[in-house]
Amino acid sequence: MSDQPLKIGLLGRGTVGSAFAELVAARADEIARLTGRRPEISGVLTRSEGDAMQIIEQADLIVEVMGGTEPTRDYVLAALNAGLPVVSANKQLLSRHGPELWAAAEASGGELRFEAAVAGVVPVIRVLSESLSGAQIDRIHGIVNGTTNFILSEMAATGASYEDALAQAQQLGFAEADPTEDVSGSDAAAKMALLAQLAFGGWVALDDVVFEGIEELTTEDIAYAKEFGLALKLLGTAERVGDAISVRVHPAFLYAAHPLANINGSFNAVTIESPAITEITLSGPGAGGPQTASALLGDVLSVINGAPTIDAPRQDAKLTEEVESAFYLHLEVADQPGVLAQVAKLLGEHGVSVKSVAQSGLGDNARLVMVTHSVLESDFLSARDELAEFDFLRSQPRAIRVIDEQFIG
Amino acid sequence: MSDQPLKIGLLGRGTVGSAFAELVAARADEIARLTGRRPEISGVLTRSEGDAMQIIEQADLIVEVMGGTEPTRDYVLAALNAGLPVVSANKQLLSRHGPELWAAAEASGGELRFEAAVAGVVPVIRVLSESLSGAQIDRIHGIVNGTTNFILSEMAATGASYEDALAQAQQLGFAEADPTEDVSGSDAAAKMALLAQLAFGGWVALDDVVFEGIEELTTEDIAYAKEFGLALKLLGTAERVGDAISVRVHPAFLYAAHPLANINGSFNAVTIESPAITEITLSGPGAGGPQTASALLGDVLSVINGAPTIDAPRQDAKLTEEVESAFYLHLEVADQPGVLAQVAKLLGEHGVSVKSVAQSGLGDNARLVMVTHSVLESDFLSARDELAEFDFLRSQPRAIRVIDEQFIG
Repeated sequence: MSDQPLKIGLLGRGTVGSAFAELVAARADEIARLTGRRPEISGVLTRSEGDAMQIIEQADLIVEVMGGTEPTRDYVLAALNAGLPVVSANKQLLSRHGPELWAAAEASGGELRFEAAVAGVVPVIRVLSESLSGAQIDRIHGIVNGTTNFILSEMAATGASYEDALAQAQQLGFAEADPTEDVSGSDAAAKMALLAQLAFGGWVALDDVVFEGIEELTTEDIAYAKEFGLALKLLGTAERVGDAISVRVHPAFLYAAHPLANINGSFNAVTIESPAITEITLSGPGAGGPQTASALLGDVLSVINGAPTIDAPRQDAKLTEEVESAFYLHLEVADQPGVLAQVAKLLGEHGVSVKSVAQSGLGDNARLVMVTHSVLESDFLSARDELAEFDFLRSQPRAIRVIDEQFIG
Repeated sequence: MSDQPLKIGLLGRGTVGSAFAELVAARADEIARLTGRRPEISGVLTRSEGDAMQIIEQADLIVEVMGGTEPTRDYVLAALNAGLPVVSANKQLLSRHGPELWAAAEASGGELRFEAAVAGVVPVIRVLSESLSGAQIDRIHGIVNGTTNFILSEMAATGASYEDALAQAQQLGFAEADPTEDVSGSDAAAKMALLAQLAFGGWVALDDVVFEGIEELTTEDIAYAKEFGLALKLLGTAERVGDAISVRVHPAFLYAAHPLANINGSFNAVTIESPAITEITLSGPGAGGPQTASALLGDVLSVINGAPTIDAPRQDAKLTEEVESAFYLHLEVADQPGVLAQVAKLLGEHGVSVKSVAQSGLGDNARLVMVTHSVLESDFLSARDELAEFDFLRSQPRAIRVIDEQFIG
């Protein structure tokens, strides 16, 4: 027990920063009673006020919620170099500049915690770094961006177009005026990089993550998904492939029984697969000021309680893009004899094996919808590109990954 | 870093104990590399071999998976009195003898961890004791018994009777030869007592938990549930009610959108509600040797890493049974004029307000199915008992709690 207050320097006072300051004020007595240390905000840096270096000098701990990478990086480095614990919600900073941040923390005895950076209050960072630190993890699947999940849920529920669903998300405060970082998949990619680092122990940079957004998805894709009993999600994947790992984000169809298929609205969820545990799923609100503030406060408590620090990544992870997926393939073709045979022959030549196929007439045209068995992605994608060359194709082939039933626990 | 191995005394070598010993052997190198301490099993107590006191004397840490309360309690007390950390999967022991165990741990500097006692590898203990230790928790809902969830899922999926589903669960190893502890709700009650203790900080004994099992549920109840889009689960609840808390376990209908409605088979899941976080849900396999072993090993790692210990309960919790629920009420009545009016009048006199009602003919009889608004349980139950006295009742009224849509995040 100590009588000293815990002086928190708060960098940033937007929605999350304000919610955090309120939460600290509301919970300070209880925390003091439980831990012997009363947290108090000793300085705040806003866009117009405060001196970052002075705030750092006077603090016992820094909470960084200003976002961005510059000048944030300088401030966080200064705090870590001074041996302070830093609690951050900044996935972009962490996934771009991790190695130098971790090196600074290790050199000075500072520490870095970032539960709030991924899936808000859903405690996936803690579960990976503590509960499962003794388990071998094979794969993580995550819905880690609430904006895109809200948009896709809205498109599925109402038949709204992508544009209309985005506009609604913006109106409700689930999407920024400039939604690029969310809808492009970049935000989810940064979060998956952090999860991969914790699960597999190596450093994964944002640039190592292959990602694809939701801007090209159509109401028709969603309608097909429903017809097949599938849910369309922006899915992050981090998995072991031989002695390497793959980290990627793209739209994917999930079978209805998949634990992530029913995660709707702005919720986030992560499924962790390991031979020892089969799988566990964690879900909850992915963002929002009070939720993120609560995740930050959880990390502050970990610091007060002296909880084990998060391990720095040991080395660069060995990454691969040679991964397998099942695919949904949608072709609009001229309704003439021999088309299906030619398509099937070309797929077969690329090693793509078809699991199910449905053909329906559209006047002079026909629609072929197939689901393939699991196949090397590069093989499938070259097959798709060659398919596009056929004279009888009436529009570009549409392909979306399918997460197979075999993964269901 | 230390060169000393961590000597683990293992009390019990059934399914879980054997799986734990295997897991320790498989992961020892990796754990030694990460933490500097190599775990090794230094002694094993089985039904026929080993001296418990000698094993405790020679160990740095005790893992207790022998179950039961006697002589287990003596051994665990001896270990705690010797200042050892004890990792236990024994919810019966913990929920019956908590105060003396915690007192022994506090007096000697030992510690008690029990992630494996609730929901297997689903890290609900850690999340409550660490991530959410700074949050005010209002309510926990849990499906915390895999046997009953398997049976109810099976009844819902196949229309099997309770007896047949139980027989199948036994055949597949999901139910014991004597399934009483599971199907009576007693196992779930012990787990909910532990969760309530962590969430609300006071001591809750197994005897404080009101529980009801699944033995009386019929295929017809399940069929109704499906008709209304409801899932029938054995649900544990721990919640604040004014300045007291209520902890209870009973069958309940959940609306399809509830995060626990889709938890099927032997899976467990827990939803935690708090003003700061809305709600988070954790789910995964609830039992099974390797899963429980993995949860035990997670606790062993927490000990090695010096993770914050779990707080002892501060005092007896103040408990109440004055809680509110919505109810599903099923009546078989004579098909004669005035019946509905008399039923409605009696319910009204008890303050029970009806949300929906459906009447259907059955030859000379009729079936009335109602869902009420939320009502004080004692009011509803006395109304039900008075209803049973009506001449026109053709069988005992059936009442099952309904978890309202308002709880959905």
